[in-house]
Amino acid sequence: MKYARIDVAGTERVALVETAGVEHNLTLFPIGTDLLIAACEHQVPPTDAPVVALSDVRLRAPLMPRSFRDFVSFEEHVVGASAMTADPASAVELWHEQPTYLYGSPHAIIDPGYPVAGLPASSQLDFELEVGIVIGKDGRDLTPAEASDHIAGYLIVNDWSARDVQKHEMRGGLGPAKSKDFATTIGPWLVTPDELEDCRVGDRLDLRMSVFVNDSEFGSDNLAHMGWSFEELVSYASRGAWVRSGDLIASGTCAGGSLAEAWGRSGALDPPPLSPGDVVAMKVDRLGFFSNPVVAPPAERYKTVAATPLRDLHTLTGTTK
Amino acid sequence: MKYARIDVAGTERVALVETAGVEHNLTLFPIGTDLLIAACEHQVPPTDAPVVALSDVRLRAPLMPRSFRDFVSFEEHVVGASAMTADPASAVELWHEQPTYLYGSPHAIIDPGYPVAGLPASSQLDFELEVGIVIGKDGRDLTPAEASDHIAGYLIVNDWSARDVQKHEMRGGLGPAKSKDFATTIGPWLVTPDELEDCRVGDRLDLRMSVFVNDSEFGSDNLAHMGWSFEELVSYASRGAWVRSGDLIASGTCAGGSLAEAWGRSGALDPPPLSPGDVVAMKVDRLGFFSNPVVAPPAERYKTVAATPLRDLHTLTGTTK
Repeated sequence: MKYARIDVAGTERVALVETAGVEHNLTLFPIGTDLLIAACEHQVPPTDAPVVALSDVRLRAPLMPRSFRDFVSFEEHVVGASAMTADPASAVELWHEQPTYLYGSPHAIIDPGYPVAGLPASSQLDFELEVGIVIGKDGRDLTPAEASDHIAGYLIVNDWSARDVQKHEMRGGLGPAKSKDFATTIGPWLVTPDELEDCRVGDRLDLRMSVFVNDSEFGSDNLAHMGWSFEELVSYASRGAWVRSGDLIASGTCAGGSLAEAWGRSGALDPPPLSPGDVVAMKVDRLGFFSNPVVAPPAERYKTVAATPLRDLHTLTGTTK
Repeated sequence: MKYARIDVAGTERVALVETAGVEHNLTLFPIGTDLLIAACEHQVPPTDAPVVALSDVRLRAPLMPRSFRDFVSFEEHVVGASAMTADPASAVELWHEQPTYLYGSPHAIIDPGYPVAGLPASSQLDFELEVGIVIGKDGRDLTPAEASDHIAGYLIVNDWSARDVQKHEMRGGLGPAKSKDFATTIGPWLVTPDELEDCRVGDRLDLRMSVFVNDSEFGSDNLAHMGWSFEELVSYASRGAWVRSGDLIASGTCAGGSLAEAWGRSGALDPPPLSPGDVVAMKVDRLGFFSNPVVAPPAERYKTVAATPLRDLHTLTGTTK
């Protein structure tokens, strides 16, 4: 089943998506329906519910996640993108040993189709093609077999990144934060696991993932090329910690799914960073398609300042401790 | 004003805290009061509201934050703790140039007094003495002067950390995540900015911070020794991004506020990591006091696995791409 959140004439609605050929028809649930509950319970709209065409409505991000964990699970991306880390050889070596993830901002979520602006004073806007899952029920210390029951559905994730800011802040050792918390597109809808059963190869999903820049395919990979299954990633995320209903957990960038990987391999900004006017589209088998246009970043309202030296702060407090 | 969230006979209540000498009296707000709204509006309970003694109730974390950003703003901590990063000299140099932060888990929040268990298979449990602010209203691209209006209150933060896991995962370049998402204590209550006006020195707050291990003071610092003011940190956090009502933004660890800093300076695990039976207490002038006992970590239910090699995944999908 596929569940979308949409705006119909200014009202937020949840809809069941039915696909016939290239057409998508959206059957509306009653006002007030919660998308995640509907998806977890495989709800269907009442038989007399209105049907609208996708072209007549505005898609919203399916939900605002409660938290966002982003893993790094595609080996080919790591080899290219690790050029941004302080110690590339060590980064690749560690990658094999265990899953790694970082937390992102749950407030960065934007809708499919929404214009994306880079960060003030950044000139290296990039995209990241990923697939994410949404957690349907709380869990802790789950095995991969148990984790499977906690996956409510799948969607496409574009984890937009400001690479110049990222490279700079990662030198601090704490990973990227400011460089990624301005925009993350998720959508176009939430696809429940039963829709993907016939795509399973072992514990992976055989789904082609592609990213397009201005209508031309830039890169593609297969979701089955994740170094760990989603169930293994959820299990690791839940180790000594809560994964909760409404959490977003993403695969990390696939091979060919970012400009940064190409820059890392070639050592040059080729192809160039995104510019206002560019359109980035993402398509994953069975999960759908969305695009976002790039617009100019906002002006810088306040210049980042350096730390006040400790000796000046000691003067303030009249102490040396 | 000081606002606490408490359990009274099994019911969650919000209370106004009034301090007389070493006694704290808690006047109950009506059931259903939202702590953050009460604090933002400087609400007071009805005149006939019941009063309870702190010793008769159980303190809860004042709120479950919507997101958690943790900065690194104390220079002396950076110098010691950067021994954990891949490139310590570069980490310290970068630290001066601009604020850095990472996102943590909003689900890791635990109550003052609640037992803290380390991670399965970790043997280096540590604490981090910090002060946090809670955002009271949404904002974006704020100047420091504007940011001041968005701070609803202050509280103490203990960002518990599993240092062996942290050191290992930070080699991947994405910063700590699994090593910190098991427990973060916040409390004991939310203190609104008006309570601290007479402690202001310039844009810093002259408040002594101390951490105690088993009743003996382990380290102390002054909150005024932050390299940036909270207003500067909020401004930076809001650059091209939302800071939202209910967000927790923490200072990062102060000097002497963690075992890791001592380990970094000496190169040895001295003093030793926390063990079951230890009690860690934190005290900050005007903000209050809380402690948590350490208990044994849960057993490991599932061993972390290495990545499946890409050649095996290619066999699965019958492709090389």
